Amino acid sequence: MRKMDYQNVKGTQDYLPDTEVLRRGIRRTIEDVFIQYGCRPLETPILNYKGLLASKYGGGAEILEEMYTLTDRGERDLALRYDLTIPFAKVVAMNPSIRMPFKRYEIGKVFRDGPIKTGRLREFTQCDVDIVGIESQIAEAELMMMALDAFRKLDLKVSIHYNNRKLLTGMLEFFGTTDEKINKVILILDKLDKIGLEAVSAELAEQGLQPATIKYINRFLTDADNTRLGYFAPLAERNEQVKQGLAELKELESYLEFLGVDDRCTFNPFLARGLEIYTGTVYEIFLSDESIKSSIGSGGRYDNAIGGLIGTNGSYSTVGISLGLDVIYTALLPLKGKIVENPDVDFYVIPINTEKHALLVARQLRNKGYKVECELGKKRLGKALDKANKEKFRNVIIVGEDEVKNDQIKIKDMFSGEERMDSFSFNEN
Amino acid sequence: MRKMDYQNVKGTQDYLPDTEVLRRGIRRTIEDVFIQYGCRPLETPILNYKGLLASKYGGGAEILEEMYTLTDRGERDLALRYDLTIPFAKVVAMNPSIRMPFKRYEIGKVFRDGPIKTGRLREFTQCDVDIVGIESQIAEAELMMMALDAFRKLDLKVSIHYNNRKLLTGMLEFFGTTDEKINKVILILDKLDKIGLEAVSAELAEQGLQPATIKYINRFLTDADNTRLGYFAPLAERNEQVKQGLAELKELESYLEFLGVDDRCTFNPFLARGLEIYTGTVYEIFLSDESIKSSIGSGGRYDNAIGGLIGTNGSYSTVGISLGLDVIYTALLPLKGKIVENPDVDFYVIPINTEKHALLVARQLRNKGYKVECELGKKRLGKALDKANKEKFRNVIIVGEDEVKNDQIKIKDMFSGEERMDSFSFNEN
Repeated sequence: MRKMDYQNVKGTQDYLPDTEVLRRGIRRTIEDVFIQYGCRPLETPILNYKGLLASKYGGGAEILEEMYTLTDRGERDLALRYDLTIPFAKVVAMNPSIRMPFKRYEIGKVFRDGPIKTGRLREFTQCDVDIVGIESQIAEAELMMMALDAFRKLDLKVSIHYNNRKLLTGMLEFFGTTDEKINKVILILDKLDKIGLEAVSAELAEQGLQPATIKYINRFLTDADNTRLGYFAPLAERNEQVKQGLAELKELESYLEFLGVDDRCTFNPFLARGLEIYTGTVYEIFLSDESIKSSIGSGGRYDNAIGGLIGTNGSYSTVGISLGLDVIYTALLPLKGKIVENPDVDFYVIPINTEKHALLVARQLRNKGYKVECELGKKRLGKALDKANKEKFRNVIIVGEDEVKNDQIKIKDMFSGEERMDSFSFNEN
Repeated sequence: MRKMDYQNVKGTQDYLPDTEVLRRGIRRTIEDVFIQYGCRPLETPILNYKGLLASKYGGGAEILEEMYTLTDRGERDLALRYDLTIPFAKVVAMNPSIRMPFKRYEIGKVFRDGPIKTGRLREFTQCDVDIVGIESQIAEAELMMMALDAFRKLDLKVSIHYNNRKLLTGMLEFFGTTDEKINKVILILDKLDKIGLEAVSAELAEQGLQPATIKYINRFLTDADNTRLGYFAPLAERNEQVKQGLAELKELESYLEFLGVDDRCTFNPFLARGLEIYTGTVYEIFLSDESIKSSIGSGGRYDNAIGGLIGTNGSYSTVGISLGLDVIYTALLPLKGKIVENPDVDFYVIPINTEKHALLVARQLRNKGYKVECELGKKRLGKALDKANKEKFRNVIIVGEDEVKNDQIKIKDMFSGEERMDSFSFNEN
C-alpha cells in the first residue's frame, strides 16, 4: 500500500464529528425509548461460530452468501454476525434460566458482504427489540406503539404497514399455488409496489403457476376492497391459514384502535417481508413523505426460530422489530445544516498566553455540569473567534493576561456580539 | 454442530441484562465526560484493509500476530481493527481539511486473537480520546484531568502513574545501553513491579548488557531518591534525551499542580508502556485499592505515527488516552449486588385479564417520561409480585377488572408494602 493511499473498505465509511453527533443523538433517543418500554439491554459478540450463523434457523440462503467468514489462530471457523436476531435466539437457547417473557434490546454493528446501494452499507448498525414468551398479538401492538413513539421523538413522520403471513400463505394456497412455490410467490408479490402489476404477473408466469391461479392472484391484487379485513371473512371459512391469520389481524387491530395508534398503521395484504423466518404478523415502517422509498424499520413474529435452535419441538412465541440506524440517519441528514448552535459545547474558552488559567476556568464550568471546549492550540484571538463562528459555539470566554491579573474573565455572546466581564478567582490558587 | 450445543467463541461473551445495565452506565458516564471536555465523536469501521493495520505505524509485531484477517467476496485482504488509534490516524491522514487541534473520542469494539487471561477478552471495548495538534504538555494535563473526572464519576479511586520515554531512553543510553537494546530493556524494566529486582537483573544479563551497565541500572532502580525530578538534573547536562524528557516532565508537573490534581498523579521513572509508538509522556491509571493489578487506562504521546502514515516527515503532535471498558466493568461488578432498586423500571404494571388497559396505563406514564414495564405474559398476580421482588421493581400498578370498571388503578410500594388507589380514565377511550 502506498502512503497517503489509505481508503476505507468498500461498503464502510467513517463518520466525522458533524455527522456522528447526529448518529449519537439517534442512537440515544432510540435506546431511551427502548428503556422506557421496559426492554432490557443485551450485548452479544460480533464474532460467532460459523455453524451457529449458518444454521437453518438463521437468515436463509441469501444472507449466508453475504456472511463474512474467517478462521482464528486456533483454526476455528468463525463468522461476523449478519443480524442481532440469531445471537438473541442463541442467548435464549443457552440460558434456560432467563425469566419469560423476556424483552431485550440490542443496538450494534452487523456485517453483510452484499451489493451496495445508496444508504446500504456492508457494516451497519441495527437497533432491535425482540420479545420471547408472549403468544398474544398484544406484543406486536406494544412494539408498534414503541416504534411510533421512537419516530415521534426523532421528529420523523412514519406509517406502519402490517400483514400476516398466515393470511397471505392461506390466500395463495386457496388460489391453487402449490406448497413449494408459495415462498417464491410471496417474494414476487413483495415487489408489487416497486415493479408494478404487469411485471408481477410475468414473474408469476415464469414460475409455472397455472393461468387460473395467476388470474385469481391478479384479481386479488387489484381488488379495491382487499384492504378491508372483512374481504377475507368468506375465505376464512374455507382455509385454516386464512382463518388463523384473519383472527390474529383482528386481534391486533383491536389493540391498535384501543391504544389510539390505528391512524398510523395500515393493513397491507401483500406485505410479505423477504425472510422465511416469519410465521405470523409482519410489519414495515415507511417515511410518510416517501423521501426514502425503502422501509426504515421492520419485523414480525417468528415462533419457530428459537425452538429450532434449541432443538425442542416446542414453539417459542417470539416477535421482534428492527430499526435501521443508518437509514434513519440518512433521513435526518438534511436537517443537520439547520443547526444554529452547537449542542456539544456550552462554553468555548480562549486563552491568550494563559493556557493553564483557561483550563482552570474550564474545570470550574465542567464541575458545574457544562460542556466546555478549551482552546489549547495557541490560536490568536481572531482565529479562535473564526473557529467559534464556524463551529457555531455561542458562548465564548476570553482569558487574557490582564484578566488573570484582575481576577476576571470576558464573556462574549457570538450571536448578539455582546460582551461582559465576570469575576473569577485565579489568584487564590 | 449439534443442537443445544451452541457456545460463544473462546474469548467472547454475552452480557445479560443485569450486567449490561452496568456496562451501559459506564459507557454513558465515560462518553458524557468526554463530551464535557469538548471531545468530538468519531465512528470508524471495524473492517479495514489489512495493509493499513499492518503498517509499521500500527501496533507493532506483537499485535500483528493477534490480528484477525479475512478475505471478502471481492478477494480483498481485510482485517478487524485491533485498536482505535490507527483508524483515528487514518481519518486524520485522509481528511486534510480537519481543523487543528482535533480532539476526538471513539468508543468501540476492537479485536485481538491473543492469549486469554482473567478480564482479557478477544473482543473488547475501548474508550479513547486522542488530540492531534498540541505540542505542549498541557494536552497531557487535560487528558489526565479528564480521566480523573471520569473515574470520580464512576466512583472508583485511582492514581495515575506517569513518565517520559525520552527520560527513560536517555538514562539507559547514559548507562551504556546500546541503541538496539533500549526497547528490549525498557520492556524488561516495565516488569519490575511484577517480577522484582532480581529477575529484572537476570533478564538484563541475558540480553548481554555490560556488567557496568547492569550495575548502573540496578542502582537507579533502587535509589530511594529516583522519584524526585531533581534527581535527574545533573544527568540532563550530559544527555540531550534526559534533558528534553526532564523539561517536559517539569512542564507537565507544573500544570498538574496548578490544576490541583498532582495528589492523584505519581511520577514513576520506570513506567514504560510496552508499545514502541510512544515518543514522550506515557501514563497508566491504576485502582488505588489494587483490587485489579493491571492498569485500567493508559496512553501517552506518539508524535510520529500520523506523520508516518501520511508519509510526510512532519511530526503531528499527538497524545491519547484509552480507558478499558471491560476492566472498569470488572472493577465495578462487585457493586452490582448492592443495587436496592432497579434503575431501569419506575413502574411495573400488572394486568389481571386487562392487558390492553394496562398498556394504556403504561402509555400514559411513558408519555410523562417514566420507564415502564407492562406485564404481558399472563402471569397470575402472585407470580407477578414475585417477579417484582426479584427484579427489584419498587412501584407496582395493579390493573384488575374491577379497577377498570371503576376508573381506578391500585399502586403498591413493594418496599413499604403500602397500597393506595388512584384514578385513571379507562372508559373515555
